[in-house]
Amino acid sequence: MSIAHRKVNKRIRFVDAQGNPLSNKDIGIRQTNHKFLFGCGAFDFIPYVLKEEDEYKQITDSWLEIFNYGTLPFYWGQYETEEGKPNKDALMKAAKYLQSKGAKVKGHPLCWHTACADWLMKYDNATIMQKQLERIDREVVGFKGVIDMWDVINEVVIMPIFDKYDNAITRICKEKGRVGLIKEVFKRAHADNPDAVLLLNDFNTSTSYEILIDGCLNAGVPISAIGIQSHQHQGYWGKEKLEEVLERYSHFGLPIHFTENTLISGDIMPAHIVDLNDWQVDEWPSTPEGEERQAKEIEEMYRILFSHPLVEAVTTWDYRDGAWLKAPSGYIRLDNSKKPSFEMLKKLVKEEWWTDETVTTDENGYAIVNAFKGDYNIGCDGVEVEKQFVDDNEEVVTLK
Amino acid sequence: MSIAHRKVNKRIRFVDAQGNPLSNKDIGIRQTNHKFLFGCGAFDFIPYVLKEEDEYKQITDSWLEIFNYGTLPFYWGQYETEEGKPNKDALMKAAKYLQSKGAKVKGHPLCWHTACADWLMKYDNATIMQKQLERIDREVVGFKGVIDMWDVINEVVIMPIFDKYDNAITRICKEKGRVGLIKEVFKRAHADNPDAVLLLNDFNTSTSYEILIDGCLNAGVPISAIGIQSHQHQGYWGKEKLEEVLERYSHFGLPIHFTENTLISGDIMPAHIVDLNDWQVDEWPSTPEGEERQAKEIEEMYRILFSHPLVEAVTTWDYRDGAWLKAPSGYIRLDNSKKPSFEMLKKLVKEEWWTDETVTTDENGYAIVNAFKGDYNIGCDGVEVEKQFVDDNEEVVTLK
Repeated sequence: MSIAHRKVNKRIRFVDAQGNPLSNKDIGIRQTNHKFLFGCGAFDFIPYVLKEEDEYKQITDSWLEIFNYGTLPFYWGQYETEEGKPNKDALMKAAKYLQSKGAKVKGHPLCWHTACADWLMKYDNATIMQKQLERIDREVVGFKGVIDMWDVINEVVIMPIFDKYDNAITRICKEKGRVGLIKEVFKRAHADNPDAVLLLNDFNTSTSYEILIDGCLNAGVPISAIGIQSHQHQGYWGKEKLEEVLERYSHFGLPIHFTENTLISGDIMPAHIVDLNDWQVDEWPSTPEGEERQAKEIEEMYRILFSHPLVEAVTTWDYRDGAWLKAPSGYIRLDNSKKPSFEMLKKLVKEEWWTDETVTTDENGYAIVNAFKGDYNIGCDGVEVEKQFVDDNEEVVTLK
Repeated sequence: MSIAHRKVNKRIRFVDAQGNPLSNKDIGIRQTNHKFLFGCGAFDFIPYVLKEEDEYKQITDSWLEIFNYGTLPFYWGQYETEEGKPNKDALMKAAKYLQSKGAKVKGHPLCWHTACADWLMKYDNATIMQKQLERIDREVVGFKGVIDMWDVINEVVIMPIFDKYDNAITRICKEKGRVGLIKEVFKRAHADNPDAVLLLNDFNTSTSYEILIDGCLNAGVPISAIGIQSHQHQGYWGKEKLEEVLERYSHFGLPIHFTENTLISGDIMPAHIVDLNDWQVDEWPSTPEGEERQAKEIEEMYRILFSHPLVEAVTTWDYRDGAWLKAPSGYIRLDNSKKPSFEMLKKLVKEEWWTDETVTTDENGYAIVNAFKGDYNIGCDGVEVEKQFVDDNEEVVTLK
């Protein structure tokens, strides 16, 4: 598994403010951020920015030790509990805080049958559709520049046949069909922010989802990246399944995002559970053996994903244990202490796949830089500049 | 289950050659054909037209007692064993014979990974694709007016992941994607014969096939009718599954064809067999109990399908026992004797759902005709005309 594609290998000429070569100098090449998106659910940033309690400061500070990419919740039923009163301020504050810390933000999701607003159900389908599109306008335009990445629509394979309870989105998906609805919501989000990264996201990794993507692309839907969920409450997929999924979803040539990854550090959920939400327990402890296993699985999975040329983002769903389904699915425990998975991922992201080195220029100011793609602080003799390295093109770096 | 939509209920004015009303006359309303397509595999017509042997005359004559619609084989590997030498004459002769007997003909299939021509594999993918499109031109243009109904492409859900053996079509489907390939072959067939009925056909009746159709329609593929295979070697689907499949495939609002129906009159194939072709037996006898069961299942299935407004065609795959997989899947036994299923279906098609009656006109020549949609011979006082009844519009029938 090569990760050469994650690095630049380039010749750089270092010059001073007057354009003279910095000959035979030591140049510090210090990475400040990754191009690759190491993501995590960032829901805890909302209570943090609202209350600034120590509890949440601990959580968000350790979160920022590893991640450069956060998912914020825009579930319609929670974001706009009462029609016309969206929770914009809190989300904007959290998003801007993340942005200020160098983390990109993705909004999740703009259209979904689950966690949808109940008040929509009093309208007819045409009105629901209109409100869905207006909702997309409001969020995508309203957060432009702060959030430019969206899970546009979630879990469409099951959407029109979802029968656990009535909801407004299943109704319109039944009427318009899967691809018909996807087309309309993507078209609107794309019009609202043509530069946004727009994802289709699903937990279904079967042939059905492949065919759905195939149909969407042939129908001209502007999908920027394929979102794949990988909640593994029922046990780690393993290398073979992971590679098989990557192989099948690589055919489209589109970037792949692992949008919702979960690996747990306790007993695994029984295999007979079909909808993970049906597994309701009072407590679900993290165990020492489970924590070791989780760290190993995290390592294997991230190594495979980081080595795959089309994967651009991997997001762990729960940062802290006990979030969704009370699962021990986080990088930190309920008492906010760091788990072995935290140390493992941090080691990969901030040591093994991180560049912090000194290169020495030749007499003409040239040096070869072999560095992980991302943002850099370049320093020499107390002078520092910020640069982004993303390709192998030769360039001149001026230290002034 | 109403079948009112299968009938016309219309006021007709019967007049003589001079336009005078045929007052108070008995008018014979004798059906000669159905609008509904009662189909069957018509492979046996090929040896019949070539050799006119008594054996095949028996088979094809009894076939014509029930059916008005036949499927002829255009499997590329058999139709063109040697490149450039298609078996056109035999197929044309069989198709024209069927047409002369009032039976519509469908060609099956223009593109399929199974029974494909091995000689294609020596070409690169671009050439395979070009030959596939030229093959479509040749058949669709060449048989125009005789065959205007085609299974354009077969079993696409599995096509790019079919791994039993290498073949030219799986190769191009892998490269172009499912919807991409469907788009190209349909576009070509439609251009070759814009009035043709063009089907997508699959044995897969899962969500995957629904999504494939959804994607194709949103990508502008000119699908005239949805083809659903229903080979029930492993036991009758039953009313519930049949209605569930009909419900799901009705959402598109397109005509539905049951293209390949099989119900057997012997032991059923074990459930663990995934690919029916893997069940290879020396003999597979038809049993008296099996024949009674088959007739009952045929009756229930045809009643449900005939009552569904979107179903336009039902085709039984094997006419005679022992054809595909040696299964006792036909309407006649190996000795060409008629099975209970034959008598059952004939009773439905030619008695219960058949109109042969006399109406009496009023003094102005009017009578109400309530008749199954189809072709009619209208007679009065020794004068006869041919008419087609397909709607409820009032009309004038001139007997001259």
